[in-house]
Amino acid sequence: MSSDPLVIFTPSGKRGRFPVGTPILTAARQLGVDLDSVCGGRGICSKCQITPSFGEFPKHGVTSTPEALSDWNAVEERYKSKRGMIDGRRLGCQATVKGDVVIDVPPESQVHRQVVRKAATARAITMDPATHLYFVEVQEPDMHEPTGDLERLERALKDQWGIDGITADLSILRRLQPTLRKGNWQVTVALHKGHDDTSHRILDIWPGLSETRIYGLAIDLGSTTIAAHLCDLRNGDVKASSGVMNPQIRFGEDLMSRVSYAMMNPGGDQEMTRAVRVAINALTETIAAEAGIDPNQILETVFVCNPVMHHLLLGIDPVELGQAPFALATSGSVSLNARELDLTAMNETARVYVLPCIAGHVGADAAAVALSEEPGKSEDLVLVVDVGTNAEILLGNKTRVLACSSPTGPAFEGAQISSGQRAAPGAIERVEIDPVTKEPRFRVIGSDLWSDDPGFDAATAVTGITGICGSGIIEAVAEMRLAGLLDPSGLIGSAAQTGTQRCVAEGRTNAYVLHDASATGGPRITVTQSDIRAIQLAKSALYAGARLLMDEMGVDTVDRIVLAGAFGAHISTRHAMVLGMIPDAPLDKVTSAGNAAGTGARIALCNIAARAEIERVVGEITKVETAIEPRFQEHFVAANAIPHATAPFPNLMQVVSLPDVSFNTGGGDGSEGARRRRRRK
Amino acid sequence: MSSDPLVIFTPSGKRGRFPVGTPILTAARQLGVDLDSVCGGRGICSKCQITPSFGEFPKHGVTSTPEALSDWNAVEERYKSKRGMIDGRRLGCQATVKGDVVIDVPPESQVHRQVVRKAATARAITMDPATHLYFVEVQEPDMHEPTGDLERLERALKDQWGIDGITADLSILRRLQPTLRKGNWQVTVALHKGHDDTSHRILDIWPGLSETRIYGLAIDLGSTTIAAHLCDLRNGDVKASSGVMNPQIRFGEDLMSRVSYAMMNPGGDQEMTRAVRVAINALTETIAAEAGIDPNQILETVFVCNPVMHHLLLGIDPVELGQAPFALATSGSVSLNARELDLTAMNETARVYVLPCIAGHVGADAAAVALSEEPGKSEDLVLVVDVGTNAEILLGNKTRVLACSSPTGPAFEGAQISSGQRAAPGAIERVEIDPVTKEPRFRVIGSDLWSDDPGFDAATAVTGITGICGSGIIEAVAEMRLAGLLDPSGLIGSAAQTGTQRCVAEGRTNAYVLHDASATGGPRITVTQSDIRAIQLAKSALYAGARLLMDEMGVDTVDRIVLAGAFGAHISTRHAMVLGMIPDAPLDKVTSAGNAAGTGARIALCNIAARAEIERVVGEITKVETAIEPRFQEHFVAANAIPHATAPFPNLMQVVSLPDVSFNTGGGDGSEGARRRRRRK
Repeated sequence: MSSDPLVIFTPSGKRGRFPVGTPILTAARQLGVDLDSVCGGRGICSKCQITPSFGEFPKHGVTSTPEALSDWNAVEERYKSKRGMIDGRRLGCQATVKGDVVIDVPPESQVHRQVVRKAATARAITMDPATHLYFVEVQEPDMHEPTGDLERLERALKDQWGIDGITADLSILRRLQPTLRKGNWQVTVALHKGHDDTSHRILDIWPGLSETRIYGLAIDLGSTTIAAHLCDLRNGDVKASSGVMNPQIRFGEDLMSRVSYAMMNPGGDQEMTRAVRVAINALTETIAAEAGIDPNQILETVFVCNPVMHHLLLGIDPVELGQAPFALATSGSVSLNARELDLTAMNETARVYVLPCIAGHVGADAAAVALSEEPGKSEDLVLVVDVGTNAEILLGNKTRVLACSSPTGPAFEGAQISSGQRAAPGAIERVEIDPVTKEPRFRVIGSDLWSDDPGFDAATAVTGITGICGSGIIEAVAEMRLAGLLDPSGLIGSAAQTGTQRCVAEGRTNAYVLHDASATGGPRITVTQSDIRAIQLAKSALYAGARLLMDEMGVDTVDRIVLAGAFGAHISTRHAMVLGMIPDAPLDKVTSAGNAAGTGARIALCNIAARAEIERVVGEITKVETAIEPRFQEHFVAANAIPHATAPFPNLMQVVSLPDVSFNTGGGDGSEGARRRRRRK
Repeated sequence: MSSDPLVIFTPSGKRGRFPVGTPILTAARQLGVDLDSVCGGRGICSKCQITPSFGEFPKHGVTSTPEALSDWNAVEERYKSKRGMIDGRRLGCQATVKGDVVIDVPPESQVHRQVVRKAATARAITMDPATHLYFVEVQEPDMHEPTGDLERLERALKDQWGIDGITADLSILRRLQPTLRKGNWQVTVALHKGHDDTSHRILDIWPGLSETRIYGLAIDLGSTTIAAHLCDLRNGDVKASSGVMNPQIRFGEDLMSRVSYAMMNPGGDQEMTRAVRVAINALTETIAAEAGIDPNQILETVFVCNPVMHHLLLGIDPVELGQAPFALATSGSVSLNARELDLTAMNETARVYVLPCIAGHVGADAAAVALSEEPGKSEDLVLVVDVGTNAEILLGNKTRVLACSSPTGPAFEGAQISSGQRAAPGAIERVEIDPVTKEPRFRVIGSDLWSDDPGFDAATAVTGITGICGSGIIEAVAEMRLAGLLDPSGLIGSAAQTGTQRCVAEGRTNAYVLHDASATGGPRITVTQSDIRAIQLAKSALYAGARLLMDEMGVDTVDRIVLAGAFGAHISTRHAMVLGMIPDAPLDKVTSAGNAAGTGARIALCNIAARAEIERVVGEITKVETAIEPRFQEHFVAANAIPHATAPFPNLMQVVSLPDVSFNTGGGDGSEGARRRRRRK
């Protein structure tokens, strides 16, 4: 035994002695080394490519020589000539052990390889999806051995892959016999085993060794937008990302108006359920077309969403979510067949996993943010704000995590804004206003040029300038405040008060003209007083939620802030703080995490252990209910000013100076602040 | 501890000491005594009724006195006055222990009580169905405890019933919240846990304590008829039995012609699948109406069927079953939702269990017969013959069980018979022919009178005399042979040859007139030469199958014979032997088991342990393939005579004498036998 050659794998460092003639793949399996194989060592899938390392390895105490492996063989030669293979690589199933050898497993040959996310926080996702492909050779039926084809497939999977227990849907059973015969008793099967399943489920089957790739969708189902990532279930690559408006908007812009719609209209909940499912089907088709794949290759979908969307997706009347105590029908995760949700655009056996909800107002989207941003693993106190029509807010560190949800409304997503639109080419996304001239410059999605750069008109000729998106309106309002066009109460000054003709009277209030091409038949984009009010309501709700969690935690400041949301990556943190959306913090400690909920969905799609983890974590999060908390109202009212007046902004003040202006437009503006100021004068 | 009162339960004999004040129900639970309760001890369901036994019990070493139990209380009084209760009974949840006491649990209060089958073999079914009702009190939701309603129901079931892990279909989740609120946080749930399930599945939910009863269907899905029993899942009572013709008959009368239909017609298999599912839905509605129950009370269905019907029910193309090696798509049992089979007439969450198949030609119906008749537990060698369009034949004892299937065709079910019909009121089911006068008398289904009894005409006035069913044709043919109207080759004699005008010429052959009311516009029921030929083919196939198993077992005789089948209970064993359907055996050792396959289905419906058992047993049965066995053809040809000529009938000859007749009708009858006889003459 001890005279058998020593095989050492890198990067794992796993090692063991094996008899001469043992294939490298076999050695890897016996040692538990992560070396991929779909064909089970038959030299046809090429997934088990390895790189022998030759030389002295004092650290490992071996000398690895080319003679330590069997010769390059015909199988490898055929594969390399037909499909190509990097020089120095071998097929792990063909190369056998002859002497002490060091074998490197390149990342592409690892099943559980790590994928670095593109988002700002470069946390890696370890690939361990619920669905894998397996190639098997099935014993032919025999009159003297009267088992069924499914039972022989089951035995083959056990013998060849060590897989115990399979189940098959009727649709698979229907195709099983012709597929086995077409593949001449060799088939590739997609097997799915969720983190709480006891057996593997056949999701699809192909004759012979299939070259198919399999995909999953990670869907962030928001009140206003539905965003989806199409991920390769083999390596986690995002093949395409796409989004559509949530068609339920026609039943109510925010969640409570949709709950009201369900309460007032018999069958209204089902109407909304149908609408969102149809939209998801359309989105599935769009994203598959964008990626150039067959929608049948989509075998899994993970959903994250707020509780009302959660119930409406599942077809549960959300009425209880509209009244205290805001009871969820189910708070746990939900695993089911896509067909049960009428998701007909993907593979007919595709599985769905919906993350657990934290509470009646804090949904699976908040859970996804917790999975993505991991506040519970943070050493310092982190505030995570996921901005959407409902903001999910998490505050915590290793000791404790608090969560709440705040009804910001859709203004941050460009809705309820006079020139608002969703983030799409042509939308203004960045705004600067010169504090002296009060003249704006801006950038639109689709071009890197500013509006005063040469060539801007040509660059935006195709898309045009169509409106202003969420990040654009945040910057516009903050810049207006910084330029002295807006007073702390949120009133826009007149042309006389501000000294710029860009401030124009609109009814009894003023508006700021950001862009005016009306003379040439183009659009006129303004920020109106009611736009400012909508943003004030939204940001007050957001701030009040964060503040409530800070009260509960007994702190006045946080160590760092993570801004997330469908447009999280695009929010300028400085502008967000000028607006008073978030508490004061060192500006270099305010980061954007992009669509954290969507990232959480991707993590749950690519790693089943993450599903078990978030189910555990959700149980440990303390949920704070904003709807019944009087302090929420207090914070909300106090946060109306720009920035809000409830706490000083020492960090912000180091980088900006806020003009001390106060406007009275005289009537028309019925806000408390305006009235109070009028009395004062 | 040891001074606590002793509580002894009968009939189980279980005993234990319990502190004064312990409710009897609690004591029973702790001892594992089978005492029912739906409300969990709240004094509202009354299922836990017990009878205290008072007096000296030397066997148990105690004296049980009325003072040993707490006084009759208000809860018991209210229940007794409102609903009634047998004198001497107490509610087990109300009566508490004060002293040594003997408590009898009456059969009605036992969950796992035994139900004696009505069929000939009085084997009992122990009730242990997969689905039970539970009453629970669920904690109200609370803003500070943000779990979902489902999770609180789950906790209540764990706390109050010790049930670990539940799952709920979306349709249940949809109804969960309103039902909990309607029931003021008390609900009754129907929970299903199959023998291989790891968690309980909610099948239905009612507000408060529901008085609903829940039912299951045991369906014997035959090629010609579909027979169903509606069973009360609480006590196993058969509330109704009903049957319909299998509408697939229009695609082919026997199995192979249906497989051919599927092969020749694209989509033909799906057409047949739809047809049989529609028929099952109609049958479900009929049987529910007959029993006067809401079809939504049907929560489970068990199917037994031959392999072709098995595949067509599941929607699997049966083409592989039509050619060697007759591979099943799946041979294991199948558990699924009724909705997956489009069985829409029962509760929308109803579960289906299909028994495992033994082999490509020996199906779940044969497995059900094995479950019902248990040849593998028999000391003596038993031949079990389940007569249908395909006969399932089992031969075995404790050492070994063999099984085969034989294509008898539908003649035994009244099809392919000139005056044939299925067993229904008006059908002739018993026939006697006077050996001297050659005059017949008969009985029809729906009346106990013979046709020559006074009052017969009046008794059958409503149903009329409509045709002849399977058992009727068997008796008619056997009686014709016994009366000398038929020769051993199966030829019907002419009026001249037999001396009776009831034998009439029909074309070039003869027929026997069993009943003629044509003069008054009524029916004329005859047994024709082609009827005899159909019966000869059917019985030859049946006998050849039995004989093949006997060859395989190396025996020439069997110890006993069990005749089963949809009409098994109605077959006269003496006539069956005269016909040569079965090998010779002592007539008192030939018994009828009724619909053994249907009984097997009922057993699997009422007892989940039986499902595990039959899955094990099926693996141990040796299957003999008739289709490729040359000896089957030999036996088949040799068994054409009435009775067949391959073996002597010593037992039969002790009770009957067979006339030595031989007819030659001259042409018209092209059978081998007739031609041989013609050559001989």
